[in-house]
Amino acid sequence: MIKYPNKKADYARDKVSVKRRGMTFEALVDESNTFYLNQGIAVIHKKPTPIQVVHVDYPKRQLAKITEAYYKTPSTTDYNGVYKGHYIDFDVKESINKTSFPIRNIHTHQYEHLKQIHLQGGIAFLLIHFKSQDTMHLLPFDALDHFYLRSLDGRKSISYKELLEHSIQIKEGYRPTIDYLKAVDQLILMKNHEE
Amino acid sequence: MIKYPNKKADYARDKVSVKRRGMTFEALVDESNTFYLNQGIAVIHKKPTPIQVVHVDYPKRQLAKITEAYYKTPSTTDYNGVYKGHYIDFDVKESINKTSFPIRNIHTHQYEHLKQIHLQGGIAFLLIHFKSQDTMHLLPFDALDHFYLRSLDGRKSISYKELLEHSIQIKEGYRPTIDYLKAVDQLILMKNHEE
Repeated sequence: MIKYPNKKADYARDKVSVKRRGMTFEALVDESNTFYLNQGIAVIHKKPTPIQVVHVDYPKRQLAKITEAYYKTPSTTDYNGVYKGHYIDFDVKESINKTSFPIRNIHTHQYEHLKQIHLQGGIAFLLIHFKSQDTMHLLPFDALDHFYLRSLDGRKSISYKELLEHSIQIKEGYRPTIDYLKAVDQLILMKNHEE
Repeated sequence: MIKYPNKKADYARDKVSVKRRGMTFEALVDESNTFYLNQGIAVIHKKPTPIQVVHVDYPKRQLAKITEAYYKTPSTTDYNGVYKGHYIDFDVKESINKTSFPIRNIHTHQYEHLKQIHLQGGIAFLLIHFKSQDTMHLLPFDALDHFYLRSLDGRKSISYKELLEHSIQIKEGYRPTIDYLKAVDQLILMKNHEE
């Protein structure tokens, strides 16, 4: 039996490229940040995970071995930096839910931090990879704020349709893989327009 | 024998107030950042120390105990954040040398990082506590750059006189103890003037 090319399957393969490369969305964002840094485009780093060190051994000179430590709850988001003079602050999220992005993915301290950044004139957002559609989105703080406040006494998630309406979609590219600063450029344009 | 008040000694005590409070300069900067955050003046955090986790035990449900980990060399400075829409990035230094600030206190990765920030339009500087004089200084990147480059084939330190000439002095206050954003305001004014 001859196997004819399956148009639908090919299309599906193209769409799931982020998953196909075997890297997490966060790892691809990290890779893109390294590209931005090396090209002198932006300086954006992932913050280290906060760890409470309880005990340190010194088995050899100059080698400190931590033998007891615990993860602490972060008080900020994971990413921040500077781009064209603007302060940038965001967190990276993957939505495994098929039809919507649950608000419970956003921790209170992350929302509060992004709000503080927004009030201080920084550019605050979420980068969301919507797995079932394999689409990537920059959700600006204004929109996040709206959906977060709605979740307190209403719908607890952002539907995919709402996400499409209120976010800036990011296309996967070559170098960098996730060129989210293109979406940030749009935010900066809108910001300058408001001023 | 009657002990008359010693004017000189009283004056000396006033000058060593940072040391007297028994807190490190860094701890006072952290305290000031908390004040700025709570008052909605700025959002500036100290980054966690980067740690490479090798082994984690789970002795109890939901309690991850790190049993083997090592300190990693940071690739950035310790402090960054946003103030009046400006990206702020700095490191905190204490100079124990009596007459000058040795350039070896600044690690290559810190200099390189501050340079990248400066080129990207961020506000980069060092906060220096000069212990023997008990004075505090904000040294802007421009001046740091000059002294760092000079150290490559010349004098390896910044004399106290040079520091006084090229830095903005910070007076100790009440709330916050170290109101370094006043010095940053001067930098912002100079920056706007240049544009």
